[in-house]
Amino acid sequence: MPVTLDATAPDFETRFAALLSAKREDSPDVDDTVAAIIADVRRRGDAALIELTAKFDRVTLTPATLRITTDEIAQATREVSAEERAALEQAAERIRAYHARQLPEDAQWTDAAGATLGWRWTPVSAAGLYVPGGLASYPSSVLMNAIPAKVAGVERLAMVVPTPDGVLNPLVLLAAHLSGVDEVYRIGGAQAVAALAYGTETIQPVDKITGPGNAFVAAAKRRVFGKVGIDMIAGPSEILVIADGDNDPDWIALDLLSQAEHDESAQSILITTDPAFGQAVSKAVDKRLETLARRAIAGASWRDFGAIITVPNLATAAELSNRIASEHLELCVADPEALSAQITHAGAIFLGQWTPEAIGDYVGGPNHVLPTARSARFSSGLSVLDFMKRTTLARMTPEALRAIGPAAETLAASESLEAHGLSVTARLDKLNR
Amino acid sequence: MPVTLDATAPDFETRFAALLSAKREDSPDVDDTVAAIIADVRRRGDAALIELTAKFDRVTLTPATLRITTDEIAQATREVSAEERAALEQAAERIRAYHARQLPEDAQWTDAAGATLGWRWTPVSAAGLYVPGGLASYPSSVLMNAIPAKVAGVERLAMVVPTPDGVLNPLVLLAAHLSGVDEVYRIGGAQAVAALAYGTETIQPVDKITGPGNAFVAAAKRRVFGKVGIDMIAGPSEILVIADGDNDPDWIALDLLSQAEHDESAQSILITTDPAFGQAVSKAVDKRLETLARRAIAGASWRDFGAIITVPNLATAAELSNRIASEHLELCVADPEALSAQITHAGAIFLGQWTPEAIGDYVGGPNHVLPTARSARFSSGLSVLDFMKRTTLARMTPEALRAIGPAAETLAASESLEAHGLSVTARLDKLNR
Repeated sequence: MPVTLDATAPDFETRFAALLSAKREDSPDVDDTVAAIIADVRRRGDAALIELTAKFDRVTLTPATLRITTDEIAQATREVSAEERAALEQAAERIRAYHARQLPEDAQWTDAAGATLGWRWTPVSAAGLYVPGGLASYPSSVLMNAIPAKVAGVERLAMVVPTPDGVLNPLVLLAAHLSGVDEVYRIGGAQAVAALAYGTETIQPVDKITGPGNAFVAAAKRRVFGKVGIDMIAGPSEILVIADGDNDPDWIALDLLSQAEHDESAQSILITTDPAFGQAVSKAVDKRLETLARRAIAGASWRDFGAIITVPNLATAAELSNRIASEHLELCVADPEALSAQITHAGAIFLGQWTPEAIGDYVGGPNHVLPTARSARFSSGLSVLDFMKRTTLARMTPEALRAIGPAAETLAASESLEAHGLSVTARLDKLNR
Repeated sequence: MPVTLDATAPDFETRFAALLSAKREDSPDVDDTVAAIIADVRRRGDAALIELTAKFDRVTLTPATLRITTDEIAQATREVSAEERAALEQAAERIRAYHARQLPEDAQWTDAAGATLGWRWTPVSAAGLYVPGGLASYPSSVLMNAIPAKVAGVERLAMVVPTPDGVLNPLVLLAAHLSGVDEVYRIGGAQAVAALAYGTETIQPVDKITGPGNAFVAAAKRRVFGKVGIDMIAGPSEILVIADGDNDPDWIALDLLSQAEHDESAQSILITTDPAFGQAVSKAVDKRLETLARRAIAGASWRDFGAIITVPNLATAAELSNRIASEHLELCVADPEALSAQITHAGAIFLGQWTPEAIGDYVGGPNHVLPTARSARFSSGLSVLDFMKRTTLARMTPEALRAIGPAAETLAASESLEAHGLSVTARLDKLNR
């Protein structure tokens, strides 16, 4: 049974705080193993990759077969059904359209002092995309990582995906193809992250690495951070649904279960103004758990980390939601826009009962790579900006330097940075002030 | 003597690669010490802070005196000269004006399927600003970190600054006051970072921590990352000057020295199309080093990591500059805008000979917190966006769900995520498709 809380109960604050601070994930400490793997790939390059891939994925490679060729991709993707291909194409198109609107604008202006200021955005030159193998190999994640990179203008997008026992995943390869991925390598784990960060004889290094992975991949990304950029280290999935009594309990139950089925550490929370509706959802969840294919996982997540919170009004719901700062937030209420305006921290908001969170996982358009573990308090989902960087621009005229240079001289002197000041002084002297 | 390279020499590629990969910084491994300090502050709160501050800063505090009061700040800042105050005010105003233009726009639109999509930016609720004590305590850094936070709309901005032997820095406190910092605590080191991240009885926790610090502070920021957001871990400062022969060698020498004087690990590089000019700059540097107050530091940096590279043309200069991806880049050439357009990776560009880099450190307007160690390939300087996050928005109508729901069902089935698919199916069934 999930936790049931009443926001008006005297012990609510204590119990809610416990819910917020519950540790859902115990990452195994694989840091030493990962450090050794990275060092090995840096030292021996392709040879290390080939050896580690034989060991972990039971695949025998050569430098020539590290890369999955265009022909192999074309052949594998022929196996994809027309229905699946159409679905992926529709998803890709919608994701591309949404992300195209994120392209930032350059700026330039001249201010009263005569200084011309501004900035310019440029894409990362080369990005690497990690795609897990096996069960967690999601074609939708390929779209969500690769399309923003290509929209940003990344010239070279290299993907790595392990192929345990040599089995290719046709949908993943089709998603890569549709997204414009330039290179695909059949490697995974910390060794693949190391190859992307440092390069080998066959694989050119990249500047930024994104994409989900297991504890080894996460530890490797942390280790190569600084040498290259990385995206966030994602934790288990989360959903918070705020619903009034005017909803179908089964719909809400399925929305809660759609996160719970990801992972035993996932968290699904319902906040409702209607206690009876809360009970109805609880019953609907139990009923669905009888038949759901992933009922073992979803059941464990719901039992250990699920919660139903009743609140006296939607203002309280918004307040609690902001403290939870959920990855996904559904607003199944009469006026979702009004409630949304009160939300300050959330990765993605789904407005109204016709917007199940699963739409956002696949075809809505916004990115499904979102901040977990309350990090929506300070970070955002993946976007085009993650594959771009901003260079600031400044140009002084002699007049501008005359206007603002003396302040720089004063502050440089205050900070005892003499050369800083002199670099201004020498120029002002030429102008005879 | 700094390295001298000729881009047309046969061994250039090897020598340039060596310059790029030179390890300039050996961070001491303080991770275990820092882990213990953080654990202590989490366990004992104020008591740990007070004990550690007595030990490291030789200051005896109580919970009531951890915070520097408004009165203390007002009194200390009275010591600042009128000239320094005016310079700080001018700098603050220009930095505020520049960063106000970075405020991002929300978006919302309805697409052909009838889906309403968009995003909304919100500020981080509470941010913490680390300010080093002693020699590296720069009022300009307070402005550069605090003003973007306040422009972003951060409600609560808490600053920590160690006060070794109890000495307050009037300029730092005035910069905090001018920037709108809300709280100032006289603590530093890993213990201050821990207090900001986890809170104590006296200090409320924040959501994001920025600001420079020593190896202990950097290690602590790495450790609390995830619990809170952090800015980049900055390395030693760098400047790259691209100059033709039509420049005053002394000006360029001073620009190179203005980075070199920061730190023995700083790096200053000149790329020039005119070998004779390169020699003249080298001489001018040596001459200035005879009298510069910080000549020991600047001299070591220039000797160990400085470089003068001659190139046949500006196209080659741009190409090398993009490989260096310098924190600061000065373009002292006849047409700096044309050359700037060829630059893809740089933290900040200073155009033309009237724009010494030091202007950007203080009063130009753009931020002086910039990516170092070639990370301009994938990251940007500090900005208003670092104190904001984006929530994506999606709202489906029944018609929109009818148009795109089936693709979500198909992809959910492909990924064996049954509840994801059912959450769409249940709604489509209600619509009788």
